[in-house]
Amino acid sequence: MNIIDIITKKKRKEELTFDELDFAFNGYLKGEVPDYQMSSLLMAITINGLTLKETINLTELFIKSGKCFEFEKKTADKHSTGGVGDTVTLVVMPILASLNIPVGKMSGRGLGITGGTVDKLEAIPGYKVKLSEKAFYEQVKKISIAVIAQSEEVVPLDKAIYALRDVTGTVDSMGLIASSIMSKKIACGANYIVIDIKVGEGAFIKTKAEAKELSSWMKKIGKHFGMGIETLITSMDAPLGSSIGNALEVAEAIEVLKGKEGKLYDVSVEVASHLIALAKNMEVKDAEILAKNALQKKTALKTFEKWIKTQGGNLSEMKISDKLIDIHSNIDGTIQKISALNCGKLAIKLGAGRENKNSKIDYSVGIKLLKHEGDTVKKGDVLAELYVNDYDIELTDEDLKLFVIK
Amino acid sequence: MNIIDIITKKKRKEELTFDELDFAFNGYLKGEVPDYQMSSLLMAITINGLTLKETINLTELFIKSGKCFEFEKKTADKHSTGGVGDTVTLVVMPILASLNIPVGKMSGRGLGITGGTVDKLEAIPGYKVKLSEKAFYEQVKKISIAVIAQSEEVVPLDKAIYALRDVTGTVDSMGLIASSIMSKKIACGANYIVIDIKVGEGAFIKTKAEAKELSSWMKKIGKHFGMGIETLITSMDAPLGSSIGNALEVAEAIEVLKGKEGKLYDVSVEVASHLIALAKNMEVKDAEILAKNALQKKTALKTFEKWIKTQGGNLSEMKISDKLIDIHSNIDGTIQKISALNCGKLAIKLGAGRENKNSKIDYSVGIKLLKHEGDTVKKGDVLAELYVNDYDIELTDEDLKLFVIK
Repeated sequence: MNIIDIITKKKRKEELTFDELDFAFNGYLKGEVPDYQMSSLLMAITINGLTLKETINLTELFIKSGKCFEFEKKTADKHSTGGVGDTVTLVVMPILASLNIPVGKMSGRGLGITGGTVDKLEAIPGYKVKLSEKAFYEQVKKISIAVIAQSEEVVPLDKAIYALRDVTGTVDSMGLIASSIMSKKIACGANYIVIDIKVGEGAFIKTKAEAKELSSWMKKIGKHFGMGIETLITSMDAPLGSSIGNALEVAEAIEVLKGKEGKLYDVSVEVASHLIALAKNMEVKDAEILAKNALQKKTALKTFEKWIKTQGGNLSEMKISDKLIDIHSNIDGTIQKISALNCGKLAIKLGAGRENKNSKIDYSVGIKLLKHEGDTVKKGDVLAELYVNDYDIELTDEDLKLFVIK
Repeated sequence: MNIIDIITKKKRKEELTFDELDFAFNGYLKGEVPDYQMSSLLMAITINGLTLKETINLTELFIKSGKCFEFEKKTADKHSTGGVGDTVTLVVMPILASLNIPVGKMSGRGLGITGGTVDKLEAIPGYKVKLSEKAFYEQVKKISIAVIAQSEEVVPLDKAIYALRDVTGTVDSMGLIASSIMSKKIACGANYIVIDIKVGEGAFIKTKAEAKELSSWMKKIGKHFGMGIETLITSMDAPLGSSIGNALEVAEAIEVLKGKEGKLYDVSVEVASHLIALAKNMEVKDAEILAKNALQKKTALKTFEKWIKTQGGNLSEMKISDKLIDIHSNIDGTIQKISALNCGKLAIKLGAGRENKNSKIDYSVGIKLLKHEGDTVKKGDVLAELYVNDYDIELTDEDLKLFVIK
């Protein structure tokens, strides 16, 4: 077997065998296949695609490349393909734990306009995103919930491949995306999973057709590996919550846990309901009643507070900047659209997100949207507040194009 | 401008601008674009293609990356896309020079089953494949012919890109092949060129449709850069000449220069006729008379001998192995087919060709085909002679599958 034959096969749109994928991908991890050959193969895969069989085989190779976690009881997990103002995890996980569905979750950091749960949790002073394996298992056993940063020992092959995809224009491959997400979830020990596939200008999936394809593949992979799996396709044209920025998003999640309604509430309940239905083997409608009840009775909120405290976090010390800049409407009209993409870009400029992997985040800054799509506004109304770390920040008209008002 | 955007554009099958190609390709040559990004782009190019405009722009970038030669008088050149037993250059170039059409040619080495003119010339003891620039120009001026090894200073960008294509499964791109060949010919100063596109199992182009496409592109590129250009599409299912192996092929070229007829004679006359027609602006039919006359009157042969001698070669010292192994027919029948591919592979095994770039060649070994397609043979007849450097060479039945007899 040799790597050029494997590359050539995929270039001709032929299906690679398990052994060929193993030779190429693990060869790369071991340093036997150089990066310039791997990137050539990745481009052939991105253009010509992977079959479902190849994707399942690749997922297996990814999983086996590192450590696999396994909990005493079956655990639930969720995954969002990423968006702006998407704080669903911080609402859903406590709902599940409050219903005695264990959650042992590993989360990622944000990149570009997409936020990451680990960054948000780090906005809480003292919160430990790293726990020893023993402490992680014990916390899940004791309080049914622990959320830590992705372990370096899990799926190292995906980590290596992702770093190369990121710099070679080969991120948007359905098969590679599906393998990457599913292998991590499986290796982290999740038994029930809901994948929230974000579609729209603020997501990396732009069309519903692509989302449906990804959904179908993920379900097939999940079932192949014995998971209980459901997928949702939800919009990411506008930010999901009203807050963009790490501490601001934690604060908004707490509001939702206290019962504040809106899009973030709705999607959180939807994700929670599907997970409860899977974990408790019940109708989604019944599961929805349990989810809403956990919010209404504040049992999810109490679980959230207990979880943060157990993991070292001190919510009362969380800082949100007190330097505010108001954004006013310059006409009378109705808000037609709020741009998730532009909100995400502005958040990066304010310091809330990462332009590249080495960027430092300011947890205290961000954007709070005071008006929403469909709202009627008058000239001079405050549309949004920017929480900045320096009043001298230079913002262009382009930066501030968050709202379309007509 | 950034390289990931450029890669992404080509991944989406969009046309790259001159500046984008410049940024990527010259960036690679300067070490600013790493090989893993270049190979990703090369794979996107190989699968999604280059437009004619992109190919012309890339050819220009290739040419400008290094030294360009220019002769006092207009020179003629030929190029074969490579095959087995293809000694046309050694016959055609002296024909042209004997008709006062100057030839200042740079040739390549063989790789895999494909032979190279420089290797063949090195089979002649004393022949200098390297000349100083001054000596090269002077020899062309004085005797109208000089053939040297490809200068390192010509089209360094193509050299760098080819080395990467070779190890990343991205050799078979029409646009990259056309740019690579044409840029070298243009930079070497050729004004008239005939490209002999080989098609068949012993060539890297397998179908006539591909050959026609390559032909059309090369003509367009040649004309764009002001060349007189013609392309021929000739078969490479069977070896062109009866000899495969470096000294053996030189000996056969001399036989053809002495008037020996056959496929090698025919293709040589065809290539020469088209070049004469271009250089002398005459009908191909008339040019053919001149070419045949140069062979019949031995003026081409005398020019060949003068050229080799001038460039230091001593034909009388050229060695052909005296260790012969006969290959016999094991049935009565007619030769349906001689396999160029298997002849090429056997020649490599005997030591006449290169398995990889570091392989050493034995100039004295090779294969001489004594029977040809269509010949009737009897059981026991000698079909071919193998010139070996060691009688102990182990040859399997697979190695000896040169003839199909029915």
